[in-house]
Amino acid sequence: MNGAESLVRTALAAGVDLCLANPGTTEMQLVAALDSVPGMRAVLGLFEGVCTGAADGYARMTGRPAITLTHLGPGFANGIANLHNARRARTPIVNWIGDHATWHLAADAPLTSDIASLASPVSTWVHTTRDAKSLAADGASAIAAALAPPGGVASLIIPQDCTWDDAPGAAKPVAVPAPASVDDARIAAAADVLGGGNATALFLGGAALREDALRIAERIAAATGCALIHETFFARIERGAGRPVVDRLPYFPEQGAERLQSLCELVCVGAREPVAFFGYPDHPSRLADDATNVSTLAEPEEDIAAALEALAERVNAPKQVDRPTPERVGPASGTLTVGALGQTLAAIQPEGAIVVDEGATSGLAWFALSAAAPAHDCLSLTGGAIGQGLPTAVGAAVACPDRKVIAFQADGSGMYTLQSLWTMARESLDVTVVIASNRAYRILQAELGRAGIFEPGPKAASLTDLTHPELDWVSLAKGMGVPGVAVDTAEGFAEAFRRAVAEPGPSLIEAVTS
Amino acid sequence: MNGAESLVRTALAAGVDLCLANPGTTEMQLVAALDSVPGMRAVLGLFEGVCTGAADGYARMTGRPAITLTHLGPGFANGIANLHNARRARTPIVNWIGDHATWHLAADAPLTSDIASLASPVSTWVHTTRDAKSLAADGASAIAAALAPPGGVASLIIPQDCTWDDAPGAAKPVAVPAPASVDDARIAAAADVLGGGNATALFLGGAALREDALRIAERIAAATGCALIHETFFARIERGAGRPVVDRLPYFPEQGAERLQSLCELVCVGAREPVAFFGYPDHPSRLADDATNVSTLAEPEEDIAAALEALAERVNAPKQVDRPTPERVGPASGTLTVGALGQTLAAIQPEGAIVVDEGATSGLAWFALSAAAPAHDCLSLTGGAIGQGLPTAVGAAVACPDRKVIAFQADGSGMYTLQSLWTMARESLDVTVVIASNRAYRILQAELGRAGIFEPGPKAASLTDLTHPELDWVSLAKGMGVPGVAVDTAEGFAEAFRRAVAEPGPSLIEAVTS
Repeated sequence: MNGAESLVRTALAAGVDLCLANPGTTEMQLVAALDSVPGMRAVLGLFEGVCTGAADGYARMTGRPAITLTHLGPGFANGIANLHNARRARTPIVNWIGDHATWHLAADAPLTSDIASLASPVSTWVHTTRDAKSLAADGASAIAAALAPPGGVASLIIPQDCTWDDAPGAAKPVAVPAPASVDDARIAAAADVLGGGNATALFLGGAALREDALRIAERIAAATGCALIHETFFARIERGAGRPVVDRLPYFPEQGAERLQSLCELVCVGAREPVAFFGYPDHPSRLADDATNVSTLAEPEEDIAAALEALAERVNAPKQVDRPTPERVGPASGTLTVGALGQTLAAIQPEGAIVVDEGATSGLAWFALSAAAPAHDCLSLTGGAIGQGLPTAVGAAVACPDRKVIAFQADGSGMYTLQSLWTMARESLDVTVVIASNRAYRILQAELGRAGIFEPGPKAASLTDLTHPELDWVSLAKGMGVPGVAVDTAEGFAEAFRRAVAEPGPSLIEAVTS
Repeated sequence: MNGAESLVRTALAAGVDLCLANPGTTEMQLVAALDSVPGMRAVLGLFEGVCTGAADGYARMTGRPAITLTHLGPGFANGIANLHNARRARTPIVNWIGDHATWHLAADAPLTSDIASLASPVSTWVHTTRDAKSLAADGASAIAAALAPPGGVASLIIPQDCTWDDAPGAAKPVAVPAPASVDDARIAAAADVLGGGNATALFLGGAALREDALRIAERIAAATGCALIHETFFARIERGAGRPVVDRLPYFPEQGAERLQSLCELVCVGAREPVAFFGYPDHPSRLADDATNVSTLAEPEEDIAAALEALAERVNAPKQVDRPTPERVGPASGTLTVGALGQTLAAIQPEGAIVVDEGATSGLAWFALSAAAPAHDCLSLTGGAIGQGLPTAVGAAVACPDRKVIAFQADGSGMYTLQSLWTMARESLDVTVVIASNRAYRILQAELGRAGIFEPGPKAASLTDLTHPELDWVSLAKGMGVPGVAVDTAEGFAEAFRRAVAEPGPSLIEAVTS
């Protein structure tokens, strides 16, 4: 067998069986190996950011890495933005990046570049394979590196001769360590802090946002009176009716700081201490002020559920918590404001949906109102690199074919990776895309005001405006084989959304908000 | 004034007055400065690769750098692929990359990343500004670095506090050295080589492909009998009726080597020694074999026209060369093959057109047939990072509003940066987009065969196929405000192309080839 076949066999042996690909010439042996070695699903993206974002969404839902297959430095570079988001989500992903044959690099052919320099900022592990005999073992190491707690991006650079030369065979999976246990001292310290009679909160992120962990946190809150707050931007949260309700830390630093300022103690669980998303002249980086003591129960790479359970025992938490059933909102009527859009979406979204929220300013109302919607997962934009929503929806839909995926997508952000729609159509993915179409970079219009520019000049206005021409998302979707409809009233949205949810397969609703 | 204003004033003082922007929060002061300091044109791209590719096209046509304005590491990363092409084209470009405030970096907020590591592989100059007082001087240095012969990409990383803090004022332009002269010894050596009575060729690239330099090369050829061959992929060539005819070095290494193998001497002028685009198991990196002596008259960064003129004098070249007038092809009829498409395009393209050729396999026929078309410029894909054509057409059209730009674009490549169409519409750019729609990654289908895979399995077939669903470029264009039409006969294409050429403003023709 050749190196390419040894690598594909190695991945399959480790349980990795999805390849999100945008290959070129240097990857042809790897492409051929996807046929000659049975078992790996191959999904084509027409832009690399679709592949990397889909790998993120897939692993957020399955816990297993997918392979991304990209073409040398520039091809890989097109996937960096969504790998940045994946890095912040601590998502396991394995990149196979084709490169020139080892002996061809010295020629400095047109596509030659420093791939390791490009890959390092988004990777926890970067390695260049030396020869075909090493490729399988490198492939196994990459998968283990991606899966090492808490999860990360592993980038394997593969010179093409390593794929076409003979290789001895597949490599066995490399053992992955379990998340480290939190020691008793930290459990005891957290119990002391929470039992001290002060205003306290658990700050939850990462694996602490899964239902099992949240139920333990809720029991701790019942016993100690601590508040439960979660990261503003999270990889995945299990929420909705029947599940614990947790406060989201607000986005803008003044609001985030205000939420925290009454607290004497903030205990981080699977999350790092909250900081401002951006630095502003009049606000420090830290959101907690000096009066709040910040400590850590469990780091993201540690065994979070076990730490929470140990803490629950230590504070004599009740076995179960009675939680009032929140009342679900009904659909809105009339003008399609962002509030009406979010309300109607929350009112109609089906049980078990996976909502990929890149709604930006248009998504806030939905998030608040959907706490009482049927149980669902929400995936958010972890790294601030916009263009994550549609690709992540692709990956979530590949991961969970029996669940409805709702891509709640701001129009400006959606344009970065709109090629995702084509993959949705090709793979018949069950994704309802809701474009929140306000025809502006609304967040930037707000940021101009925050920068003291209350009457933007014509250039600033132009650079934050998406009219002239208006984007027509129904045509964009049609161009990629996805049926679409535009609506501009709450009733119109409700009808279109009900229909989209009832039918399997991809569709798009352009919700033009006022 | 604040740092942002000092930077914009500095750029204007150096004659840089175009900003291709996709800004975010960290760039808001720079955006505001585009209004408060008059004179800089601001053009919005909905994806960073549009901005960087447009900067490439603009500078290829004007010789002057444009500014690209992008948002931290992930935003910048979206522009890397086209900066890679610009690097290979030796195009002067200045990137202004916003970053977090200096004091906020330690917080490792979600968008923080190692921007310098991302920028280095595509930049000849990378610098991070330390404070607002330094920003203007850094900006002047960046422009000089971009313009230093032969031209390159300069990346200035700008922490946001450097834009909002007070600054003393603009910086004066930094002097840029002229291209170095080629010494007499090299001129004499080249004259000896060409006068030796052997089969010889000049291998032309970079500035040697401008009309003035080509006319000198043609005189040298008339005097010495040397052949004239140009780079396969070039930043810009001035060609067409009334201009010297030069052979293009074929793309595939066997054909490239065959073209060179009869030569005893190959003299490089503004080009590096030709190498294979990719390494293949059965072919060396070098295209010239050991029987061909390769030497250099002038490096890309040297004064190429002067070196050619000195060589012409040394070989007693005639002052003028009579050149037979090549016969222009007429439009094709019947089935719209890629040959018929290229022929018809060459038959109808107007005088003075700028043709941005990312036609890939569909572009070859046009290139051969258009040597006799009216004088035109052709810009090609220099770095192999596909998705260059539409953005470069944007930049060329901004640079040359009085000339018709023809974006001859393969469908697969076009999808990487299709957001360019929106900028064409917003800026009313005079671009006729011709999509060569073969609904496949045809080059990869050829490369599969070259890799010995003559009957691709279902996955290899799927990963190189763009049907299921078919892309509908007319709808994609409509979605971004560009009128379009699809044609599938030679006559239909001729009619649509004539109409598009006659009318100013952007339009798109989807040429579905058989």
